[in-house]
Amino acid sequence: MPASPYPTALLAELQAALSADAVLHGAEDLRPYECDGLAALRELPLCVALPTDREGVQAVLQICQRHGVAVVPRGAGTGLSGGARPLRDAVLLSLARLHHIVAIDRENRTARVQPGVRNLAISEAARPLGLYYAPDPSSQIACSIGGNVAENSGGVHCLKYGLTVHNILELDVLTATGETLRIGSQALDSPGYDLLALMTGSEGLLGVVTECTVRLLPMPEHVLVLLAAFSSVEAAAESVSAIIASGIIPAGLEMMDRLAIEAAEDFVHAGYPRDAAAILLCELDGPAVELEEQLREVETMLQRHGARAIRIAEDAATRLLLWKGRKAAFPAVGRLAPDYYCMDGTIPRQRLAEVLEQITAWSAEYGLRVANVFHAGDGNLHPLILYDANAEGQLHAAEEFGHRILELCVSVGGSVTGEHGVGVEKLDSMCVQFNAAELAQLHRIKHAFDPEGRLNPGKAVPSLHRCAELGAMHVHHGQLPFPELERF
Amino acid sequence: MPASPYPTALLAELQAALSADAVLHGAEDLRPYECDGLAALRELPLCVALPTDREGVQAVLQICQRHGVAVVPRGAGTGLSGGARPLRDAVLLSLARLHHIVAIDRENRTARVQPGVRNLAISEAARPLGLYYAPDPSSQIACSIGGNVAENSGGVHCLKYGLTVHNILELDVLTATGETLRIGSQALDSPGYDLLALMTGSEGLLGVVTECTVRLLPMPEHVLVLLAAFSSVEAAAESVSAIIASGIIPAGLEMMDRLAIEAAEDFVHAGYPRDAAAILLCELDGPAVELEEQLREVETMLQRHGARAIRIAEDAATRLLLWKGRKAAFPAVGRLAPDYYCMDGTIPRQRLAEVLEQITAWSAEYGLRVANVFHAGDGNLHPLILYDANAEGQLHAAEEFGHRILELCVSVGGSVTGEHGVGVEKLDSMCVQFNAAELAQLHRIKHAFDPEGRLNPGKAVPSLHRCAELGAMHVHHGQLPFPELERF
Repeated sequence: MPASPYPTALLAELQAALSADAVLHGAEDLRPYECDGLAALRELPLCVALPTDREGVQAVLQICQRHGVAVVPRGAGTGLSGGARPLRDAVLLSLARLHHIVAIDRENRTARVQPGVRNLAISEAARPLGLYYAPDPSSQIACSIGGNVAENSGGVHCLKYGLTVHNILELDVLTATGETLRIGSQALDSPGYDLLALMTGSEGLLGVVTECTVRLLPMPEHVLVLLAAFSSVEAAAESVSAIIASGIIPAGLEMMDRLAIEAAEDFVHAGYPRDAAAILLCELDGPAVELEEQLREVETMLQRHGARAIRIAEDAATRLLLWKGRKAAFPAVGRLAPDYYCMDGTIPRQRLAEVLEQITAWSAEYGLRVANVFHAGDGNLHPLILYDANAEGQLHAAEEFGHRILELCVSVGGSVTGEHGVGVEKLDSMCVQFNAAELAQLHRIKHAFDPEGRLNPGKAVPSLHRCAELGAMHVHHGQLPFPELERF
Repeated sequence: MPASPYPTALLAELQAALSADAVLHGAEDLRPYECDGLAALRELPLCVALPTDREGVQAVLQICQRHGVAVVPRGAGTGLSGGARPLRDAVLLSLARLHHIVAIDRENRTARVQPGVRNLAISEAARPLGLYYAPDPSSQIACSIGGNVAENSGGVHCLKYGLTVHNILELDVLTATGETLRIGSQALDSPGYDLLALMTGSEGLLGVVTECTVRLLPMPEHVLVLLAAFSSVEAAAESVSAIIASGIIPAGLEMMDRLAIEAAEDFVHAGYPRDAAAILLCELDGPAVELEEQLREVETMLQRHGARAIRIAEDAATRLLLWKGRKAAFPAVGRLAPDYYCMDGTIPRQRLAEVLEQITAWSAEYGLRVANVFHAGDGNLHPLILYDANAEGQLHAAEEFGHRILELCVSVGGSVTGEHGVGVEKLDSMCVQFNAAELAQLHRIKHAFDPEGRLNPGKAVPSLHRCAELGAMHVHHGQLPFPELERF
């Protein structure tokens, strides 16, 4: 047992409401929960509650409210921005044991699932019906739908099929006080404010999802993947703009630069051209007759922009091989240096070339190599800054470099996070993205759901004080612009 | 000048901030603004302010705040649920003079427009670039994009191309206190809570849009329309389910029953088969090669469900003629009886046949004829209940009948409004759709944006008192379940 004064009453009530084995509290049992995918930030929670149903989740929320204790909801813990990072004085509420697919409706093409159901498990269950769930974050084998809703997850195919928010219909939610809300509907639209979208991407600050109805799509009739090599990053970027401007919406449109290509090739031998300055991977899907025509058009555009060595994969095995390099890009780059800092920003597509040029210039200035991997089609960059935390000053330099990249994203009209969320990692960048009035409005919404601020405190939206200290907000005579929000 | 005590100071300040001709106050000048598309409810506003730019809108909001006066925002006034209905003690803030298209970006396929720009004007301006704005409410010649955002408008094509919320990227908004918020971004997703979706469909209760960036789509290569006749409504409904279940997403999929067919045919002579119990209009769009295949599939499915007299219109003139009957259905039905009550509810598609059967039964019970027109593809019903307001009891019967239809929509898993919004018309139905906790949450969100409740008061979300009086909410010992929301 920890030496600090431990709220034994809280623990006893949780055990009575759930069961003894559904409440973890010894340091050894808590260790696996000390971080999420942002492994640099670790902290043991007060305890971990593992309810198995909605009533259990409600009991945890109600008990915590009575004790005035904060709650950090957690899905599969694969998030990359620390959204599910525990707090030492908060109960970590794991939704992992709510892992049942409740129903699949073939005719309406929907599935009702509990929040702990893994993303990929939905598509696996729907496959016999010829259906699948479209959003496919890289972590889809492990990540859960509840976490996807909390982070509004995307994936390679979100260019064509949208983010999580575009693929869900209805949510059952419990508020911080344990109240039940049914949000959205089976219909196209529902009256009242759009709480479904508000909840999606709210990073566990507004409520806890206990059930989710997702949209299923018919599996595409035909799929093919093109690989095109370019001798300059600019040419690849211009091809992306040309494809999108043509009106064709690829199922996926991904770009990697030389360092990422080399790392991926060394790691998984996908057959990428090592001498290319950049490659594009373009997936097309749809009816066979439509694909033929699209393929011709895309090939023409790629060639016009100087593409060479275009390869086309139509069978599943070759397609998988081409994607394998892209999907392994992060761990592959991880082998090039002791540490890397994965950025996640978005920019308007047509600014791609100039943003990359600036990143290259900064890379030289800081003496830190950068591998670039992007969801090019939707303007989502993932520069990976390589560094060595044990080398004097490199961690600091990498962080400063990263922060400048995000500032650049905002200044060209983009945003500080594409798909990884804000969590604790991007709090400072939010001060760059939003002005005081906008942040104040976000806090007021938090207050409208959780006036005591007990759900996932300190995440997603920075306090006005924090932004003021960063110099990103004006303070007049020691007073913040929205004194009534002082405590957030 | 009205006899009631008139806030002359308010009027003088508004005139000084805008210009004398931008503030209407004489009864004659106010008359054109006494209602919106819900013409049954009329009331003269305190005055009408007609600013021409963002600064003018801000000035109006700030002046009204200083005077503690409420503000009702108004677009083109075509809304059907009374969302822009004036209040005698509130300033009516017309956005009609902010009617400029600021920019069209061909490469990014976006347009930046002021709120008073007409829906159709965007597509007209984008046509030379081969682009168009997809949401197309029936009122698209007249309705404005600001009103579309306020009501989250749909239209015939929203089945394939989504509602307003799916077709906008960024909003500039002024809050009730005149604060500026930039919401959303040019990128696919933006960090922080999804205020873009929250604002869309909020019926003028959360803020006033001063600029909007909309998505543009490439005009489809080819379009065709099928007309299919059925000898039973059930067969038509089953065809709809079959088409949707096949994975084909028509650009539009509309259904009309016999009374609507006859009325439309008498009115515009579209060539509809008068002897059909129901017709389906199915629009397909896309590349020519894809359409050929889809057409074959749809034809097969329609025939399998007993369709006869299938007609296919490929040229623009015949397509327009087929649509003309559908688009004129409301006024056409209006010729059949002195009055009609237009319902707008949604249901899960597969419940269509049973819901129609129940409506037919009630029609006999009340002795009131019903013409049915629906966006069948997305389960949005528009039963038009015919009555005569001058005949004893018919108005009351029509309202009761309508309310039962909406209750039925909710009970089968749908909602009380598909696309017309809640406004003042559907306030009571909202008490059926939502429980006390859900309504309380909606009020808390209102409070987070507009704590004084000065933006469009009394619309969209019913007070808890109202629902309690309707018997749709439990009251314990004279106390509402959320006493802190007493005043809403």
